[in-house]
Amino acid sequence: MNDFPIENLPYGAFERDGDVHLGVAIGERIFDLHAAARARLFDGVCDPGVLQASVLNPLLEKGREVWHGLRSRLQALLSDEQEAGLYVDGGDASMRLPVAIGDYVDFYSSENHAANLGRIFRPNSEPLLPNWKWMPIGYHGRSGTIVIDGTRVVRPNGQRKPSEASTPVFGPSTMLDIELEIGFITGAQSIFGLVLVNDWSARDIQAWEYQPLGPFLSKSFATTISPWVVTMEALQPFRIAPSQQAPSPLDYLRIPDDASYDIKLSVELQSARMRERGVAPVTISRTNARELYWTFEQQLAHARSNGATIRPGDLFASGTISGSDPSSYGSLIELTWRGTKPLALPGGERREFLEDGDEVTLRGWCERDGLRLGFGSCRGRIVPRDQVAAGTSSHDR
Amino acid sequence: MNDFPIENLPYGAFERDGDVHLGVAIGERIFDLHAAARARLFDGVCDPGVLQASVLNPLLEKGREVWHGLRSRLQALLSDEQEAGLYVDGGDASMRLPVAIGDYVDFYSSENHAANLGRIFRPNSEPLLPNWKWMPIGYHGRSGTIVIDGTRVVRPNGQRKPSEASTPVFGPSTMLDIELEIGFITGAQSIFGLVLVNDWSARDIQAWEYQPLGPFLSKSFATTISPWVVTMEALQPFRIAPSQQAPSPLDYLRIPDDASYDIKLSVELQSARMRERGVAPVTISRTNARELYWTFEQQLAHARSNGATIRPGDLFASGTISGSDPSSYGSLIELTWRGTKPLALPGGERREFLEDGDEVTLRGWCERDGLRLGFGSCRGRIVPRDQVAAGTSSHDR
Repeated sequence: MNDFPIENLPYGAFERDGDVHLGVAIGERIFDLHAAARARLFDGVCDPGVLQASVLNPLLEKGREVWHGLRSRLQALLSDEQEAGLYVDGGDASMRLPVAIGDYVDFYSSENHAANLGRIFRPNSEPLLPNWKWMPIGYHGRSGTIVIDGTRVVRPNGQRKPSEASTPVFGPSTMLDIELEIGFITGAQSIFGLVLVNDWSARDIQAWEYQPLGPFLSKSFATTISPWVVTMEALQPFRIAPSQQAPSPLDYLRIPDDASYDIKLSVELQSARMRERGVAPVTISRTNARELYWTFEQQLAHARSNGATIRPGDLFASGTISGSDPSSYGSLIELTWRGTKPLALPGGERREFLEDGDEVTLRGWCERDGLRLGFGSCRGRIVPRDQVAAGTSSHDR
Repeated sequence: MNDFPIENLPYGAFERDGDVHLGVAIGERIFDLHAAARARLFDGVCDPGVLQASVLNPLLEKGREVWHGLRSRLQALLSDEQEAGLYVDGGDASMRLPVAIGDYVDFYSSENHAANLGRIFRPNSEPLLPNWKWMPIGYHGRSGTIVIDGTRVVRPNGQRKPSEASTPVFGPSTMLDIELEIGFITGAQSIFGLVLVNDWSARDIQAWEYQPLGPFLSKSFATTISPWVVTMEALQPFRIAPSQQAPSPLDYLRIPDDASYDIKLSVELQSARMRERGVAPVTISRTNARELYWTFEQQLAHARSNGATIRPGDLFASGTISGSDPSSYGSLIELTWRGTKPLALPGGERREFLEDGDEVTLRGWCERDGLRLGFGSCRGRIVPRDQVAAGTSSHDR
C-alpha cells in the first residue's frame, strides 16, 4: 500500500551527495527536484534556484500559481520515465526538515479532546471553557525543537509536584505522552500543505507549570513532523463539509467555501520488548481529521485577525484530534484516562504513559473511489537522557 | 547625556548604501563594522564575513572568546580617530532588527508584577500562584512580529467579551497596554547581551482568550525591541547580588556567581495632543531591572532544563518589571489599576489605556562611579488600522 501515487506528489528534503536536495515522493522513490531543475526541466514554470534551495521556503513564497504550474509539470514529467539519475530510492534516503519553520502555533481544535481534558483536569465544572466555541484556542510553541520523523525523543527533565508532596521535584518526566495532530504550512497568502505532527507532552510538568501562561517546557523539548508536505491541491478530492458550528461563528471566522478534510489517522505503539521479540507495533488509536471543530482556514483567519504577520514556512498544528469513541482518542492521557485505565500491550505489558524504548508512529491517509494517498510516517522512539550522553545516534531508522 | 561611551559598544544593524550593515554605537555616531571588516581591521580577531552579515547571528554563534577579542580590538580602534568613511551619523541612520530571532520566550519574573495581576484578576485568592516561586514562569511568543524601535504599532483587532454581554464581539482592542521588559539574546553557550522590550498587550483580548493555554493573539501583533544589543561584558560593572529567594530554588536553578543587574528603566508617554502642542513626553514609570526575582541565568537554565535546543539569536524577555511603589509599575493595567485610577497627562487628558496617536518610549541605562551607559530607546506609536490601510509609512522617526 503506497502513500505516494502520482495524484499526491508531496514535497520533502533529503540528503544527497553531502548536500540537502528538495524532492517529490513518487511510489517508492524520490524525484530529485534539485537535479531536475539543473536539467532545466522546470523552465517557464519555476526559477531553478527556488528548487535548488535546501528548504521549501522560497517555493512557499511563490504562491498558488507557481505551485499549480509546478504540480502540472511534475505530473507530466512523472508520467514518462525520466533518466535514472533524477531518482533516488525512498527507503535509503535520509530525510531532513523540509521547511525552515518560522513560528509554530499549536491549536486546540478538537472538541472531544478539549472536553476530555476538561473532564480530567476540572471534574467539577463544564468540560469546555466559555471561549472554546467562539474561537480556535491556541498558543505558540517552540519552532527550534521541531524535528523530523525518526528523530529520537529524549525523555525531558522538568519540575513536577506530586499531589502528596509539599514541594516540587526535578527529574525525568513520569507522564510522557503523545498528541496526534495535523499541521498546516503557510505559503504566500494561503495554505501550502499539511504534515502529521506529534506534539510530545510531559503531563506532569504541564500540570505544575501551566498556570497562568499556558504550556511551556512540557511541550518545548520535541515536536515531530512527518517528512512529506502533502499539498492542499492534492487533498482537494478529500474536502468535505465542515462540521456544524453552534453558536454561529463571528464574521471574521466565516470562510466562503470552507472545508474540512477526510484524513484517516492512526497511532501505533511498539515497546522495546515487543521489538526484541519481533512483535509488530499495535494500533492504539484510529481517528480522522474531520473530528476537528475548527477548520484550517478558520485557524489561519483567527491567527492573523489581530494583524500579525504570517510568514511563508510557519507551522500551525491542529491540537490533538480525538473522536467520540475511546478507541479514537489522540493522546495517552485520554486513552488511559490519566493512567487509571492502562492499555494492554501484547506480551502482558501495560502502559499508562510512555516508557523508555517505546516507539510511536503516527500515520495519515485519504481514500476515496479507489484513490489513496498518504502522509508517510511520523515516528519517534523514547530514550533516556543518560543514553544520549553516552553518544548514541540521534536518528533511528 | 549619551548612552554610548567607549565602555558600552553595543551592536546594531543599519541601512547603508541600500544594504544592511552591522555597526557599533559610539557617542552620537555608528562605527560601520562592515566597512571596517572590509578594511581588514579585525584580522586575527574575527572572520570578516561574520561582520559583513546583515544580522548578528553569525557573531552570536562564535561565543565568548571571539566576542571578547572583538570588544578589545574595538576599544583600541575607537580610542584613535579612524577614517571618516568608517562612521555614519547615528541620528540619520535607519536601524534594522539586529538579530534574526529564532524563538521568542517571554517570562513573568517580577514578583510585584505577577502579584499585582493576581490581585487584579483573582481578587479573592493568593496573589501568586503556587508554582511562581519555584520556577521562572514563561511562555513562547511570536518571533515573526518582533519589530524595531520606531515602528508604528497598529491597534489590534480581536475578540473580547464585555462583562455585561452574553456573547463576544470582534473589533479594535479598547484596552491596549505596554509591558516594560528587558530581554536577553543568546549566543553559543551563553548570553550575548540585552535589549529593551515592549511587549504590547491587548488586555481585553487577553482576558477572554487566555484560558487554558495562555496569551496568544493579545500579544502576537507586535513586540518592540531597542536597536542596540548591550553586551554582558559591558554590563559587568553593574552586576549586583541577586535578590534573596525563598523557598530556596531547586539545584538546577542555583547558578554559581549568579547576578542581577542594576539597570534603571523608565516609560515615557506623549499623546497626539501633547505632540501637536509641543509638550514633551511625560515619564509615567521609573523602575529597575534589579526588581526581577529570577535572574537571566536562571531563566536560561530553566528554559533548557528539559533538553530544549537554544539557538544563537533566541530572545528571552523578562516579563513586565514592576517595583513595589505604584510609580514603578511597568504596565498601564497596574499603573491605572485596570483603568480605575486613570493617569493625568499635561493639558487635562487622562489615560486608562493607550489611545491612537499615543507614543510610548522605554529607556534603560546604568550609572555608577561616573560611568554611564544606556540602551537607546524602544519606542512605538499607536495608529488605528484604517490609517495603515490608507498607506502611511510604517516607520515614524
